[in-house]
Amino acid sequence: MRITVPAGGVGAARFLRGLRRAAPEAEITVIGNTGDDITLFGLRVCPDLDTVMYTLGGGINEDQGWGRDAETFSIRAELAAYEASPDWFTLGDKDFATHIRRSQLLADGEPLSAVTEALGRRWRPGVRLLPMSDDPVETHVVLAGPEGRVVHFQEWWVRMHAATPAAQIVASGAERARPAPGVLEAIEAADVVLFPPSNPVVSIGTILAVPGIRAAVAARTVVGVSPIIGGSPVRGMADACLAAIGVDTSAAAVAAHYGPELIDGWLVDDEDKAAADDPALAGIAVRVLPLLMRDLPATTAIARAALDLALELRER
Amino acid sequence: MRITVPAGGVGAARFLRGLRRAAPEAEITVIGNTGDDITLFGLRVCPDLDTVMYTLGGGINEDQGWGRDAETFSIRAELAAYEASPDWFTLGDKDFATHIRRSQLLADGEPLSAVTEALGRRWRPGVRLLPMSDDPVETHVVLAGPEGRVVHFQEWWVRMHAATPAAQIVASGAERARPAPGVLEAIEAADVVLFPPSNPVVSIGTILAVPGIRAAVAARTVVGVSPIIGGSPVRGMADACLAAIGVDTSAAAVAAHYGPELIDGWLVDDEDKAAADDPALAGIAVRVLPLLMRDLPATTAIARAALDLALELRER
Repeated sequence: MRITVPAGGVGAARFLRGLRRAAPEAEITVIGNTGDDITLFGLRVCPDLDTVMYTLGGGINEDQGWGRDAETFSIRAELAAYEASPDWFTLGDKDFATHIRRSQLLADGEPLSAVTEALGRRWRPGVRLLPMSDDPVETHVVLAGPEGRVVHFQEWWVRMHAATPAAQIVASGAERARPAPGVLEAIEAADVVLFPPSNPVVSIGTILAVPGIRAAVAARTVVGVSPIIGGSPVRGMADACLAAIGVDTSAAAVAAHYGPELIDGWLVDDEDKAAADDPALAGIAVRVLPLLMRDLPATTAIARAALDLALELRER
Repeated sequence: MRITVPAGGVGAARFLRGLRRAAPEAEITVIGNTGDDITLFGLRVCPDLDTVMYTLGGGINEDQGWGRDAETFSIRAELAAYEASPDWFTLGDKDFATHIRRSQLLADGEPLSAVTEALGRRWRPGVRLLPMSDDPVETHVVLAGPEGRVVHFQEWWVRMHAATPAAQIVASGAERARPAPGVLEAIEAADVVLFPPSNPVVSIGTILAVPGIRAAVAARTVVGVSPIIGGSPVRGMADACLAAIGVDTSAAAVAAHYGPELIDGWLVDDEDKAAADDPALAGIAVRVLPLLMRDLPATTAIARAALDLALELRER
């Protein structure tokens, strides 16, 4: 069986750990969001790719959900002593090594997909991890207010904690980006496509903004896991992103935003069971189950439910 | 008083610490060798500049003479896990931060001299530290043997421990390099020029190979401190470098190699007192004193002797 999963960061990485357990024989291809990527201190940082790679490779900081385990912060302190900016993005020493190696390979002329594969040879994540594109795409946020100042997504998210509302969120460069080698093929060859509980705007939304990807996904059987439980994001500040595109922070509204032309099935938490009868979700098969990824067994059950629903819908 | 000092790494850095103590009111300009510079993991490493900066700025590993104090090695282990090469050049985590910052500023288009000044704002070394040139110069070694393989100086020095004889040592790029801004001015404005006990071939020799520097130095009153005591280099493998240019490993031979047209005075150790009567050193004022830089008082005495001799010769 072939499963393809467009993925953001922490939520996707944890979901994938469950999926790998739920479908140990499946060939899983992960299409990682690169819109969060940022160049810091001259080094290319790919937070979502790294979170997936570290989580599936056993190198993640489990408590935090991102960054490396048993991390130290010498470099950060040194760069601060050199008054290097920015000072609001925390990178540990081990994590820096990944960015140094990535930047070295990119500078040697390797595309990001080849670099990601090279890094993955160390981590053996048990999935095929592809960046959505080898072309640079950066998510930028137009801040609300008369100035309309534009900041990199990471500045809005990490430094400003999304406290200033976003008037608009733009996947800068997406319209000119081409899917990375293997991305369209992995979608076209997929028995099912699963959306993990990633941010619908800046993770899944950004991946879908790369020309060709949305249409390829829409042609498959797609089941998504709601990233919203009881009107709140399980993790992160997806509400701030949804507000920017005029979508309510609810499991039903996110499903309606994707729409029946894109997704075939949708998993919602028990708290959101009303979505099962929501006329706005006509054409989308809704299943209700506990969606908190408390631990690996719970996460595996969620992944299993998503996969089962997808296989069921695929037979129809 | 203005003192200008062409400098290599450890020996020069320690000598400078003594000189700063011996002449606390002097304006000291250090012209750092950049022939040892190397790009590792995509980052620009300037070993001699950093050794001077860390030593005078209080951040050096005192036992080792190079690298940072209280260092850790996470990044090195991580890069090895990624199978990044080379694995023979040891860089600590704090040291990596310097190379990250330097590379970031260079990538922003700053010349090495401006970058060195920026890094120095943190370290406040108490001297003006200039790279010999903003243009890339790399010392390469043609290995003896039928193959005549060419390696970067660092590979010969660090990986091979200079065990394979050098047929030739080439300051690659030196003939096209221009002295960095301020270098010729600092030599021309110097009351005296002092050669610390640096490697005569790959440190002082490389600096002198940048067009314009040798002539400017020759026009000043110059006193050097022998890096050879009793037929051996005090530190490092200067003998292997001297052999490559056909110069004996002796205090007298190094002075004769520089020659009376370049240096006016020469300090030798008690062990080498015969140099004072060596007819090959006609035209060079030789002084005999203990030259081992055991500690700061001993080093300060050596620096004071070099300065005193230079001032005396200048009056003649």
